[in-house]
Amino acid sequence: MIRVVVIGAGNVAQHLILAFQKTKEVQLIQVLARNKMELSCLLDSNLITSDFNQLKEADLYIIAVSDNAIHDVSSQILFDNKLVVHTSGSTDMSVIHSKNRKGVFYPLQTFSKTKSLDFSRIPIALESENTSDYKLLEKVAKAISNEVYQINSEQRKALHVAAVFVCNFTNHLYQIGETICEENKLPFELLKPLILETADKIQTLSPNEAQTGPAKRNDTTTINAHLNFLKDENQINIYKTLTKSIIDNGKKL
Amino acid sequence: MIRVVVIGAGNVAQHLILAFQKTKEVQLIQVLARNKMELSCLLDSNLITSDFNQLKEADLYIIAVSDNAIHDVSSQILFDNKLVVHTSGSTDMSVIHSKNRKGVFYPLQTFSKTKSLDFSRIPIALESENTSDYKLLEKVAKAISNEVYQINSEQRKALHVAAVFVCNFTNHLYQIGETICEENKLPFELLKPLILETADKIQTLSPNEAQTGPAKRNDTTTINAHLNFLKDENQINIYKTLTKSIIDNGKKL
Repeated sequence: MIRVVVIGAGNVAQHLILAFQKTKEVQLIQVLARNKMELSCLLDSNLITSDFNQLKEADLYIIAVSDNAIHDVSSQILFDNKLVVHTSGSTDMSVIHSKNRKGVFYPLQTFSKTKSLDFSRIPIALESENTSDYKLLEKVAKAISNEVYQINSEQRKALHVAAVFVCNFTNHLYQIGETICEENKLPFELLKPLILETADKIQTLSPNEAQTGPAKRNDTTTINAHLNFLKDENQINIYKTLTKSIIDNGKKL
Repeated sequence: MIRVVVIGAGNVAQHLILAFQKTKEVQLIQVLARNKMELSCLLDSNLITSDFNQLKEADLYIIAVSDNAIHDVSSQILFDNKLVVHTSGSTDMSVIHSKNRKGVFYPLQTFSKTKSLDFSRIPIALESENTSDYKLLEKVAKAISNEVYQINSEQRKALHVAAVFVCNFTNHLYQIGETICEENKLPFELLKPLILETADKIQTLSPNEAQTGPAKRNDTTTINAHLNFLKDENQINIYKTLTKSIIDNGKKL
């Protein structure tokens, strides 16, 4: 059994805690969180501490806190030469305090506390300083996911930027869709099948093959009608910027 | 049995043809298409014509052609005072030639020839000049879909703009994600679970609740790191425009 400590109480920490509780290969021996109450419904309160001096000795410490707190948290780990990893897409492995062996355990998914997830289908991007640590991380990752990848810090930064485009920015486009519906007394429900199908399409077609719409067709009549319809400055700028990019992309193909 | 003629051979026409063939309430009596070959694998060649002079008398003519051809096609229908509808999201009902009764039959979905769809879950937005025509359109729509809505031309324009944001623009963000992956020797497969979950999330959470990422947190360190990473001018402009919109939206809440 690999003994794991999770540090953090946010979305990623909570989903990891739930995932580890379902495995036989990994024993979650402790969770360290500033606010113990946040986790009280997830696991036995004996397993939770808010005191770094109470930290147990483990094979792996997973720091799942905000990016700018990773270094500070890693320096507070009492033990030396232990394997300590963070879960951040955009943070270099080197921010972890050098008294310990460093690694990264980055689950590539959008986590919300109120929505459960099948962790087995979440890709986990791993990185470590040496091969034996990588093998341990791989065992832990494979205990909860079928999609485990070795990815270096430079690639992980690229992956995180790509994730911002396909997840955070996409969700904001959904939000604009909802706003336009509300302003025109249309139920947002109308757009939900379209949103699901758009995401489902690129599971089998490439995004280039799946592209449709007025920009793809260079249909300036419709594009101008849409720009006349829009009143919000941010919506207009997003419409123009994305339309230009789709048209430019079409010229490249 | 309501007798229907479909005019067109594109993505929307083909999916409508497939859907009508499965119903008992609607009889697809003819399809008119310039290129009969395109439809030869979908239905009996006796049902296909490319000659307007061969057009059969029907209860409903559905024009599923490109937006700028709708008026011309509607003027070539031999019969007068028949119910003639188009399937366009961005086109006013009035473009249909005035010798016939006008309507709109707009299925809100992204159609690709190579990907099959469950039509029963596709919202259909209907509009007509009078109540009896609306009832006929409603019967036809309900024969193939469980999601039928009465929506006027102004609302339909809004819906089409919203659809461009949540479908066409979203797909282009997927395409950028794929490009960033390719340039960094990462498999696009890595992003697919994230893309599906992002779309799935807003089926139960509002897009505002579901929003995550550096712009939402106003995390300028990560935002600047991402902007330094990006080299393509369109990608940089899209990143900046969407980030500004997410930050401005956060201020409003």
